[in-house]
Amino acid sequence: MKLYDDPRSGNGYKVRLLLAHLALPYQYVFVDILRGETRAKEFLEKNLNGRIPVLELDDGTRLPESNAILYFLSQGTKYWPDDVLEQSQALQWMFFEQYSHEPNIATARFWLTVKGMEKTPFNMELLKQKQAAGNQALAVMNTHLQARAFFVGERYSIADIALYAYTHEAHEGGFDLSAYPAVVAWLQRVRQQPGHVTTGERPIS
Amino acid sequence: MKLYDDPRSGNGYKVRLLLAHLALPYQYVFVDILRGETRAKEFLEKNLNGRIPVLELDDGTRLPESNAILYFLSQGTKYWPDDVLEQSQALQWMFFEQYSHEPNIATARFWLTVKGMEKTPFNMELLKQKQAAGNQALAVMNTHLQARAFFVGERYSIADIALYAYTHEAHEGGFDLSAYPAVVAWLQRVRQQPGHVTTGERPIS
Repeated sequence: MKLYDDPRSGNGYKVRLLLAHLALPYQYVFVDILRGETRAKEFLEKNLNGRIPVLELDDGTRLPESNAILYFLSQGTKYWPDDVLEQSQALQWMFFEQYSHEPNIATARFWLTVKGMEKTPFNMELLKQKQAAGNQALAVMNTHLQARAFFVGERYSIADIALYAYTHEAHEGGFDLSAYPAVVAWLQRVRQQPGHVTTGERPIS
Repeated sequence: MKLYDDPRSGNGYKVRLLLAHLALPYQYVFVDILRGETRAKEFLEKNLNGRIPVLELDDGTRLPESNAILYFLSQGTKYWPDDVLEQSQALQWMFFEQYSHEPNIATARFWLTVKGMEKTPFNMELLKQKQAAGNQALAVMNTHLQARAFFVGERYSIADIALYAYTHEAHEGGFDLSAYPAVVAWLQRVRQQPGHVTTGERPIS
């Protein structure tokens, strides 16, 4: 398998983390988001929507969308629940991640830490809105985790992997995680899972 | 089952449409998004994240997130593909819907047609950005559909249901679908599916 990815991407890190848990070998292909490589014609043939990560299977099939890749790789493993209701709840949190969490927390981090942001009045107001919405998402997670070890079925699953990626770097988007102690305790539990890798432990190829 | 929903919601319509295809009976509970009922304390006990739709099962379990509800209801039916790769591709398009499509197309529609929008310079600029991103999403769909009848595996699935909901009302958000002929042809194919209901065919309870 090949993973088209940028090491700075939390969406890519989700896939790298699951691949590490599963001890699956893969070839890493660096696509530089800051140099616009995801929007270049050559890459658009791999993903029409111009985003990393994209997983390329050995037969050439390409699968975009980090959370769909997590689903694909987790089938038949302990990272995907057996029960249909728990499967649906895992997807519930993964859709929450893409709608209520990532567009706020990851985007704030991208602007403040990865790419930099022109400080126009429009951008400053949009950042303020994204930080407010990101804090709402963190509060939802904190309340949910107050009585739970993991997001679904008291077991570490791809729902945790999807939410861990940008939550553990939320401070880079101006979020103060100390206001969310149940989230902080959960981040620690995620880090203790066998086979955990940090965002720094990446293939260099 | 009970469906907590607002008839004006495309996310709710996805679930109503699949329930109609499956001829499953359910009780409809109107939650008025314009009166803030989804953010009221009583509703937050049903969904911490304060959004409809929420499906409540007979044992009291509540499942939020429209696309997770589609997954739950479609298991074991022809609306969910059998093959793991096709399942992953269905989810790929459903994550695309929640990240690249709905926040742009549904939000523009909500502001222009459902709720109304205060025409501040900030809001007008944000609307412009959302319309540009929504058109990008429609272009991605159009290219994908040029050689295909449906989004995944040449069969109507919950990926089509998820994307149909806000696409077929995109004109209410200021989008001109005539620029996307493959999308227009696909909308027609969706409408021809047995058991199709429009957004107007709703329970009144």
